Amino acid sequence: MQIKEWGEDNFIHYLTKTFSTDADVLGIGDDCAVVPVTPEKSWLITTDALVEGIHFLKDQISAKDLGYKAIAVNVSDVAAMGGLPQYAFLTIALPKGTKQGWICNLIEGISEACKQWNVQLLGGDTVGSKRDIFLNLTLIGSAAPASIKYRNTAQEGDIICVNGCLGNSAAGLKALQEQLPMSYDVKELLLTHFRPKVEMEQAMWLASQEGIHAMMDLSDGLDCDLRRLIKSSQKGACIETSHLPLSKALLNVSNAQQWDPLKLAISGGEDYMLLFTVSSEAFDELQQKFENKFNSILHAIGHIIGSSRDLHYETKGRRIEVEQAYFDHFQ
Amino acid sequence: MQIKEWGEDNFIHYLTKTFSTDADVLGIGDDCAVVPVTPEKSWLITTDALVEGIHFLKDQISAKDLGYKAIAVNVSDVAAMGGLPQYAFLTIALPKGTKQGWICNLIEGISEACKQWNVQLLGGDTVGSKRDIFLNLTLIGSAAPASIKYRNTAQEGDIICVNGCLGNSAAGLKALQEQLPMSYDVKELLLTHFRPKVEMEQAMWLASQEGIHAMMDLSDGLDCDLRRLIKSSQKGACIETSHLPLSKALLNVSNAQQWDPLKLAISGGEDYMLLFTVSSEAFDELQQKFENKFNSILHAIGHIIGSSRDLHYETKGRRIEVEQAYFDHFQ
Repeated sequence: MQIKEWGEDNFIHYLTKTFSTDADVLGIGDDCAVVPVTPEKSWLITTDALVEGIHFLKDQISAKDLGYKAIAVNVSDVAAMGGLPQYAFLTIALPKGTKQGWICNLIEGISEACKQWNVQLLGGDTVGSKRDIFLNLTLIGSAAPASIKYRNTAQEGDIICVNGCLGNSAAGLKALQEQLPMSYDVKELLLTHFRPKVEMEQAMWLASQEGIHAMMDLSDGLDCDLRRLIKSSQKGACIETSHLPLSKALLNVSNAQQWDPLKLAISGGEDYMLLFTVSSEAFDELQQKFENKFNSILHAIGHIIGSSRDLHYETKGRRIEVEQAYFDHFQ
Repeated sequence: MQIKEWGEDNFIHYLTKTFSTDADVLGIGDDCAVVPVTPEKSWLITTDALVEGIHFLKDQISAKDLGYKAIAVNVSDVAAMGGLPQYAFLTIALPKGTKQGWICNLIEGISEACKQWNVQLLGGDTVGSKRDIFLNLTLIGSAAPASIKYRNTAQEGDIICVNGCLGNSAAGLKALQEQLPMSYDVKELLLTHFRPKVEMEQAMWLASQEGIHAMMDLSDGLDCDLRRLIKSSQKGACIETSHLPLSKALLNVSNAQQWDPLKLAISGGEDYMLLFTVSSEAFDELQQKFENKFNSILHAIGHIIGSSRDLHYETKGRRIEVEQAYFDHFQ
């Protein structure tokens, strides 16, 4: 059997079974691993790779944006558990013929992102590669143990929320692939794709709220990531599609191109918004506080149900079928 | 300019200049980064990548040995600074067609090495790759701040030592490339190449000795790594080639194949022995204690001189020229 048939989730399950960990640490399965350091502080550690030909095409993203993104996607993982990023370790594998100018732009993007989120790059490895560029970043952040949010703690009746629009990044990628002419809307979608926003202050505030039961970031798309959250929490979920926040840019471009914006919002990856579940009792007050504090909407998009581990979709209360677009790195 | 002309050391120098760090942490430049955690404990963090076609050929190393090696080379970095390895984060990038059996063997090798050195694998990333396999491992270890050894603290007059034979791994690789018939000696060389030994107890003991001023591991070869040590310490060094420890296996195979064993010992990488400098006053007692404790020889191979930053070689006191075989990942 080849890895493309075996599948990413089976492979990760196999890894989880193989490597046991001590009871005081959290290993494979959430956005970050969690290691207690002192009673007041835990370290959150995450790793994300970007591989040429899989995660990016060299002629479709600038080296600077690529460098920025390598940091941003890891910062998003740390933020999604309520941590502040601190130290980064970068591996760069480069073919011999890679141009110095390209490399310097890559480093500039990395450096810009490090400055933005107060990350110190402390080490890594610089190696050759036969053909493709490979970037790997390990990021260490820290948080007070009490304010770390996990993905396995959603409870029945919780309201499922996101803190921003969905589908923009996937639409940006689609615009790129279909070589759409530049417009204000296309530019906005591309910006989300190339320069993912990580709402660090929102993440830290949300993590400090007791009413929030589970939290993770949206990297592989709502459908894929919410399935992970409910599987991990041993619950089910129902999403009301009419409540999914869609940007004007997404709606305008989708309208012009006859794209299905809902499909992009449900299946599209790399939005790096926060996905979290809120106790229904705490919701109204929390939503109000959030909107006052950040002048930004907290979107309720569905709720957690029983222990079915099923995810289903409704539109204005009527169940609909959504094509499952599960993201697997090996397919 | 391409990276192969720019060179690895210039690239690393550029990285070091770009990324500044707080005064309480040690960033790029030693075997590991060092981050203080409590007054009694610092974390040592290192990252090493293994890239198909650069570090290994899939038909020349078993998946199990490759997995074992991915852990061992990182454990060696932590040990060389006096730390005990604790937590690992593994990125695996695999082409779609990679066989499940190969992957399971890889994981078995990783798991075996993790058990051997009490390492807990806490996370990582599993991603696709277009063509080549990439492995990246980030390893976190810990040590008491007082017993961490650095590479920039060698002092004039120090005796340069290694804790085992040199050149075996490079000779193993050469035997593989030249498809030598298997013999007892060839097997021993191959074993060093595929299953690098990390003398953890020796490293911990050496790190606890005040008489030892500087320490690092030998990953890219004596010539290359000692140049790094003296550059970092702003000193020079003289090696007495007749004192370089060569194994019987290396001598026998070199004799039969007309290889130059000294060249392999000086330029060959991946021995993962410890290279360290000892104050001349402390040396005799330290050597005696080491040999009593470990029933193994501590080899004095040269001494640290002035501030020239030059490395030169002598044979029985007469200066000789050694072809500089500097290892650069991008050439």
